[in-house]
Amino acid sequence: MLAVDLNADVGESFGPWALGDDQALMPLITSANVACGFHAGDPATLVRTCRAAVEHGVIIGAAVGYRDLAGFGRRFLDVSPEDLYADVLYQLGALAGLARVAGSVLRYVKPHGALASAVVDHEVQASAIVTAIRDFDRELAVLGQGGSMLHELAEEAGLRTVREGFADRGYLPSGRLVPRGDAGSVLQDPDQIAARAVRLATEGTIVAVTGDLVDLTIDSICLHSDSPSVVAVARQVRTLLDAEGVPVAPFAS
Amino acid sequence: MLAVDLNADVGESFGPWALGDDQALMPLITSANVACGFHAGDPATLVRTCRAAVEHGVIIGAAVGYRDLAGFGRRFLDVSPEDLYADVLYQLGALAGLARVAGSVLRYVKPHGALASAVVDHEVQASAIVTAIRDFDRELAVLGQGGSMLHELAEEAGLRTVREGFADRGYLPSGRLVPRGDAGSVLQDPDQIAARAVRLATEGTIVAVTGDLVDLTIDSICLHSDSPSVVAVARQVRTLLDAEGVPVAPFAS
Amino acid sequence: MLAVDLNADVGESFGPWALGDDQALMPLITSANVACGFHAGDPATLVRTCRAAVEHGVIIGAAVGYRDLAGFGRRFLDVSPEDLYADVLYQLGALAGLARVAGSVLRYVKPHGALASAVVDHEVQASAIVTAIRDFDRELAVLGQGGSMLHELAEEAGLRTVREGFADRGYLPSGRLVPRGDAGSVLQDPDQIAARAVRLATEGTIVAVTGDLVDLTIDSICLHSDSPSVVAVARQVRTLLDAEGVPVAPFAS
Amino acid sequence: MLAVDLNADVGESFGPWALGDDQALMPLITSANVACGFHAGDPATLVRTCRAAVEHGVIIGAAVGYRDLAGFGRRFLDVSPEDLYADVLYQLGALAGLARVAGSVLRYVKPHGALASAVVDHEVQASAIVTAIRDFDRELAVLGQGGSMLHELAEEAGLRTVREGFADRGYLPSGRLVPRGDAGSVLQDPDQIAARAVRLATEGTIVAVTGDLVDLTIDSICLHSDSPSVVAVARQVRTLLDAEGVPVAPFAS
Repeated sequence: MLAVDLNADVGESFGPWALGDDQALMPLITSANVACGFHAGDPATLVRTCRAAVEHGVIIGAAVGYRDLAGFGRRFLDVSPEDLYADVLYQLGALAGLARVAGSVLRYVKPHGALASAVVDHEVQASAIVTAIRDFDRELAVLGQGGSMLHELAEEAGLRTVREGFADRGYLPSGRLVPRGDAGSVLQDPDQIAARAVRLATEGTIVAVTGDLVDLTIDSICLHSDSPSVVAVARQVRTLLDAEGVPVAPFAS
Repeated sequence: MLAVDLNADVGESFGPWALGDDQALMPLITSANVACGFHAGDPATLVRTCRAAVEHGVIIGAAVGYRDLAGFGRRFLDVSPEDLYADVLYQLGALAGLARVAGSVLRYVKPHGALASAVVDHEVQASAIVTAIRDFDRELAVLGQGGSMLHELAEEAGLRTVREGFADRGYLPSGRLVPRGDAGSVLQDPDQIAARAVRLATEGTIVAVTGDLVDLTIDSICLHSDSPSVVAVARQVRTLLDAEGVPVAPFAS
Repeated sequence: MLAVDLNADVGESFGPWALGDDQALMPLITSANVACGFHAGDPATLVRTCRAAVEHGVIIGAAVGYRDLAGFGRRFLDVSPEDLYADVLYQLGALAGLARVAGSVLRYVKPHGALASAVVDHEVQASAIVTAIRDFDRELAVLGQGGSMLHELAEEAGLRTVREGFADRGYLPSGRLVPRGDAGSVLQDPDQIAARAVRLATEGTIVAVTGDLVDLTIDSICLHSDSPSVVAVARQVRTLLDAEGVPVAPFAS
Repeated sequence: MLAVDLNADVGESFGPWALGDDQALMPLITSANVACGFHAGDPATLVRTCRAAVEHGVIIGAAVGYRDLAGFGRRFLDVSPEDLYADVLYQLGALAGLARVAGSVLRYVKPHGALASAVVDHEVQASAIVTAIRDFDRELAVLGQGGSMLHELAEEAGLRTVREGFADRGYLPSGRLVPRGDAGSVLQDPDQIAARAVRLATEGTIVAVTGDLVDLTIDSICLHSDSPSVVAVARQVRTLLDAEGVPVAPFAS
């Protein structure tokens, strides 16, 4: 049986402001989407986050975002491709250095927030990111939703893509997510989420809000670290995957 | 005869704001102290700066600074060693990535502005910088005034130090600089500065404001790119060094 | 004959970075669109700018912008109405205080850059701005292109609107601007621009790129301070308006 | 019996990052030291904070700080008096506008963090703040430790000074605070802190770490909102002050 990867956003504190429970989450995940300083993550936080990832055998990815600290990278920014290319390169370099000094190596890139939403369709921004990754390190994987413009361009550029599913989010029969705010868009119950994670990992399917069974081939399951119950959820997911004999491991090593 | 290096600060524009005449200066220098985004230098500027350095065979150094954009890194900031260590690591990684993508490699570090002034004596901050450099890349040289706490600790850590002199600044008989604001602290005449540069490069001496001849062993001459006449000065320095048969080359290759 | 107002963006320097020639421009304009610190304008610059405006009898307006220093407020930001409302209030308060301490009073608001472009059509962002202005001071005028969503909502809220025209920009027969980048979008010749300014001020018409004469009722003429020839243009506009006997005065006093 | 004021820092969240329990604290205090955006406090947070203060009859003061978000204003910054003057004016204007729109008025200024520590002795920075306050609004009070350079210069400038004491901090026999990190510098027990608050309010004395009784005339008691137990402490202080019949009220109305 193929192993499944569990990824989550970490390193999102900034200066005096703590966010997320990285300490509790790190032992439960296998891939860490580490903020890079543009939407969150002061350097001292990032140093600590990379060290914790190494300590727990978690691989390190760059959660690159828009240059928008006040908005936490969650607001679309109409940045030019030249600026976005440079912004991504800068963030990759910074995080790769911190990962290396911590004793690891940068393995992948996962756009954050509104940038992740944009590059599902926004070809110019998706292309700027792919060019930056290709110029920086062709060994980096690109983590995100399957079928996005980002993944399409990444594959054309010869980059490895890693598809993620969301056990804690509602799906439409089309395989797209239920928009946030709509009924059933976000799940909270650890048992239900764990059951969906097992199904995603073993069958490659998920039950849509309509009750339909949807095919969803994935390599990694994302756990939303901004959910207040994420640690309980992650524990239950790990417990159930173990009980079902599904190996949990980083998608790269 | 030993070659002499010419270094200057570049990459100090930010967003819509241009600063310095990097285009005119780059062909005249051999080492570029490139801003790293904390006191100046947005990523798109830094991409262009690194490309220009590569085009002109200029080696790239990281002008690391305090996180103080509004103050251009020219105001002392009482940052903790943990934060300064992480801030320097972050800046080194970011710039090293950009240098590499441009086809070069990061060669050295030169603290900027108030951070450079602080680490002449401030042991805690000097030590944080040295530890960051050592952890990041032991091959990086440390450029700055000889005899500083920074150089002392860098040498203890096994790092290469590169001493710089200022042909465009007045010196005291002690070998220290005349404080800015005092009579004779800053020189503007290209011919006079060029003559002092030749003397520094060939004899290792400089004439102090008192008229005394001072011994000053240096490996590099810094040209202040914030002087309005820096391009004219740099041209005259190059012309006179050529006329005297002094080779001009980067201190590393 | 009605007086015409001349407005321009000023106070756009930041820290060490100078932008624009405010000193030369201030004696030539009657309304100063002063940056408020979010897209440009550090506080010390803003203090100097307000003092200069008072010295030259120029009225002070708040050029409110997106919180995007690196992008100079020229990139659309999908900010929520709650955040935009608060961001505008904050900027208005800051600039109103500086204007008052300089011996004047804040008279108007003119959105800057991408925010100005957005609120031509973007009802949610336009409404957030109008609500902020109304809550802050109902005496503030709203300067901008006539016919915008911003002006429509401002008038509904009982705010005074002031329409501006662009003597240095090309117009379509519809009365809209030729998009930047298209042929004829930006004019540089001071004589031509001055002639268009006189026609705008006296006849309320402008010649479109097609040669058609377009009706354009305006209360103020904007001079683009990011044009390298703006000072020459402003001098020529003032000279020709004087020669034609058109009074030049702020739109409020 | 004279009323005593209870002040605390609020409005210190930023963007996605929450800090402090303003909602629980606001009903318990009488004066709110509201961050102004330079060390903490995004505009939307400040709008909410000012509204909450008005709702609870709490007066609003400006907690002005260094421009250092990453350091939360807790690191000394060697800013020039011209820049500090302008930075303080800008913050005062921004917060005064928000307070007014919320239905209140700015009443006082209390420097935050490292700026507060600096102006105990740093005459140049203290003078810059006093000049900014005087130019902005001569009715503003200046809240802080008695005997500071800031208070001395404020009184010379004709400003009202309000002295605060710290029931939750240890004192030396000299009336100075036990430096943070030393034994007895910070107290946590609500009962002990409440007893000290009553003594401060009724007798104007406090027991030093040595056991000596120290005279300390104060107008306000500061509760440190960065203490995890601050809400419990504030409740106990209010309860004991009520029990002892000490009226609690803002120092201005």
